[in-house]
Amino acid sequence: MNIKTVSKTFKNPLYLKSGRILEPYTLTYETYGNLNSNKSNVIVVCHALTGSHHAAGKYTPEERKSGWWDALIGPDKTIDTNKYFVICVNTLGSCFGSTGPMSQEYPSSKQYRLKFPVITISDMVKAQKILFNELEIYSVKAVIGGSMGGMQVLSFATEYPNFAEHYISLAATHATTPWTIAFNKIARESIIKDPKFNNGEYDQEDIKKNGFSGLATARMSGFISYLSPKSMQNKFSRKYVLQDGLYQLFGKYEVERYLDYNGNNFVSWFDPLSYLYITKAINIFDLSLGFDSLQDSLKRVSSSLHLISFKSDCLFFPKEMQEIKSAMDEIGKANLCTYLDVDSEYGHDSFLVETEKFNSYIQNILS
Amino acid sequence: MNIKTVSKTFKNPLYLKSGRILEPYTLTYETYGNLNSNKSNVIVVCHALTGSHHAAGKYTPEERKSGWWDALIGPDKTIDTNKYFVICVNTLGSCFGSTGPMSQEYPSSKQYRLKFPVITISDMVKAQKILFNELEIYSVKAVIGGSMGGMQVLSFATEYPNFAEHYISLAATHATTPWTIAFNKIARESIIKDPKFNNGEYDQEDIKKNGFSGLATARMSGFISYLSPKSMQNKFSRKYVLQDGLYQLFGKYEVERYLDYNGNNFVSWFDPLSYLYITKAINIFDLSLGFDSLQDSLKRVSSSLHLISFKSDCLFFPKEMQEIKSAMDEIGKANLCTYLDVDSEYGHDSFLVETEKFNSYIQNILS
Repeated sequence: MNIKTVSKTFKNPLYLKSGRILEPYTLTYETYGNLNSNKSNVIVVCHALTGSHHAAGKYTPEERKSGWWDALIGPDKTIDTNKYFVICVNTLGSCFGSTGPMSQEYPSSKQYRLKFPVITISDMVKAQKILFNELEIYSVKAVIGGSMGGMQVLSFATEYPNFAEHYISLAATHATTPWTIAFNKIARESIIKDPKFNNGEYDQEDIKKNGFSGLATARMSGFISYLSPKSMQNKFSRKYVLQDGLYQLFGKYEVERYLDYNGNNFVSWFDPLSYLYITKAINIFDLSLGFDSLQDSLKRVSSSLHLISFKSDCLFFPKEMQEIKSAMDEIGKANLCTYLDVDSEYGHDSFLVETEKFNSYIQNILS
Repeated sequence: MNIKTVSKTFKNPLYLKSGRILEPYTLTYETYGNLNSNKSNVIVVCHALTGSHHAAGKYTPEERKSGWWDALIGPDKTIDTNKYFVICVNTLGSCFGSTGPMSQEYPSSKQYRLKFPVITISDMVKAQKILFNELEIYSVKAVIGGSMGGMQVLSFATEYPNFAEHYISLAATHATTPWTIAFNKIARESIIKDPKFNNGEYDQEDIKKNGFSGLATARMSGFISYLSPKSMQNKFSRKYVLQDGLYQLFGKYEVERYLDYNGNNFVSWFDPLSYLYITKAINIFDLSLGFDSLQDSLKRVSSSLHLISFKSDCLFFPKEMQEIKSAMDEIGKANLCTYLDVDSEYGHDSFLVETEKFNSYIQNILS
C-alpha cells in the first residue's frame, strides 16, 4: 500500500473558538492509495484521543504494529485503498507532528507548554478543512472516525454539511457526559499533581527515560473506560501474577500488571500536555454549543449521517448516539440518518477491535 | 436513641489467613438500642470500605451528619432500635479505632505502617466473631451489610453458618472482578506514587493539614465507581463552574469541582495506608477460595441468605449476586435463598441512598 506522510505548515492565522489565534501551525497527515483525476475518491479518517495520522499499514515490514485502523483500511478492505484515497490528519493539540503544546511559539523558539491555547473539536476540524482546501479537495466521499474521531465527524457534518457525501461517526457522543468528564478528571489530576509535571515545565528527556507516574495513572483511568467489565473478565478473570504472594500488600492481579505495563509504556510515546489539551477538547465538546438545542444544530446536516454505537461501550453509551438519531427524526431528517447498535463485547474499544461486526455496514454505505 | 461506643482490646493472638498474627488488637464498635435478657435481639451491621462503626444516629445534636445507615437504623425504622440491639464493628485495618496500619506494633511504640499484615474479609469477620463471643452473644437475629459489608455478610454466612438466623448481603459480590480491581488499582497507584506517601512513612499531621493529593485522586476513582452514568447526569449534567472560563485549560465542570472537593476533604478523615489495606482485602475477596467452587463454599450455608443487588450498580453488578442465587439453587438450597434486584438510579451508592426501595424487603425478612 502506498503510504505517504506529509507535514504542512500554514502561515495564515487560525482563528480558534476561544478567540485566540494559532499562527503559524503545522498539520501532519498520512495518505493511503491514490487520488483520482477528478478528486472524487477521497475518504477522511479522524483519529481518537491518543491516536495519530498513522491509521493503516506499516512504514517498514519490520514495524511491529500496523496503523490503528488497519483492520478497516487497506487494499481490498472495507475502506479499499485500491479504490479510495484515504487521508488521516493528526489533530491540533496532539504530539505526532501537528502543532501542539510542545511546539515552538513563533517567533520565539520556546515551547508553548501551558501557554498553548485551548483547542476544540471544532478547531481541529476547521484546521483539517483548511488543509483539504489547500490540497484542492473540496468534497469527499466520506468522513469517518471513532471516539474523538466520531466527534470530529459530527462536527464536520454540522459545520461543513456539503463537504462529504457520508458522515460516519462511531462510538461517540453529541455532548460529553459528566461520567466521561470524571474519568478524564482522574487522568488530568494525576498528571498535574505529579511533581515531575512542574507546572508544565517537565523535562521531556527525563520523563521518557525515567518515567512519569502521573501520565501512567492517567492512562490507567483511560483504560478502564475503554474496556468493559465483561472484556476484562474474559481477558484477566481473577488471575494473579504467579511470582507474587496473595498476602503481599503489593502483590498483583494480572489486570494490575496489565495496567502498570500499559501505563508506564504510554509515557514513552505520548505527551502529558497533549493529554491535558485533548481531554479538555473532549470535555467541552457539545454539538449544541452556540445553538438552542441539539435538534437546532442538526438542522444544518444536509448529507447522510451514519451513527454506530456499541452495546458494551461504557464511555460513550449507545443512548447518546440514539439521542442524535431521535433528534434527526424529530427535525424531519430521518431519511438522512441511519443508526446501528453493534452487539459488542469489548467496550469502547470495540470500534477498534470488533471491526468484523460493522464493516459490512460501512461497505454498504460506501457502495 | 441509645448510642454506645466501646473499644475493646484482645490480648490473645488473632491468627490471620496470611499465616501472620495480630497480638494484641483492638476493636471499636458501636451499639444502638438495648440487649434483651436472653440476648435474642441482636442485629450485626457491617460497614463498607470507608465506613465506620458509626452506622446511625448522632453523638450530639450539633453533629452535621448522622451515621452512614441512619435511614435504615433507629427507633421505628426498618432496623428498629426499640426492638433490636444493633452492633456495628469498625473492621480491622480501618482507621476509626480498630487496629490498623497506623496502630502501634506492640511491644514497640512504633506504628506498623507497611509492616501491618494483609487482612482479609474473613479475618475481619473472625475478629468480630471473637468480640461477640466475649460479649456472650452466640447467635443473632441477622447480619447485614452493603458493599464490603455485604462481603462480610457472605463470609459470616459460610464460615459461621449457625451464627445468624438471617444473612442479608447488599451490593456485593462473591469474588471481586478485574473491573473493580482496576478501579482500586488507580486509587492504590495514586496513593503510592505520591511523594508524600514516602514508602508509608508519611507525616500524618502534615497530610491532614496540607493535603495529600494521591489520596484525593484515589477517592475520585472510588467516586466514579460508586455513582452511575445516570446519577451523574442527574446531579451535574454539563454544568460548568460559573466563575471559570470554558476555554481555560483548568476551568472546571461541576462534576470536577465535586470530585475535587470530596477528594480533598477525604484526606482529612481517612488514612492512606488503611485505604491500601482495605482495598487489598476487597481485591482478594473470593468466597470460593479454599473450596473447589462457589457452589462448594455455599454448601456450608445453613440459615437464610438474602441477596440484594441494584440495577444501576456499576461496581458490583447484579449479575454477580445472581451467580450466588444460581449457585444456591444448583446445590439444592433454593429454599434458603432470596434475591431482590432493586430498580435503582444511584449506582453502587444506592444501598446507602435509596433505602426506601428495599426497606420493606428487609422488614419482611426480620418479621
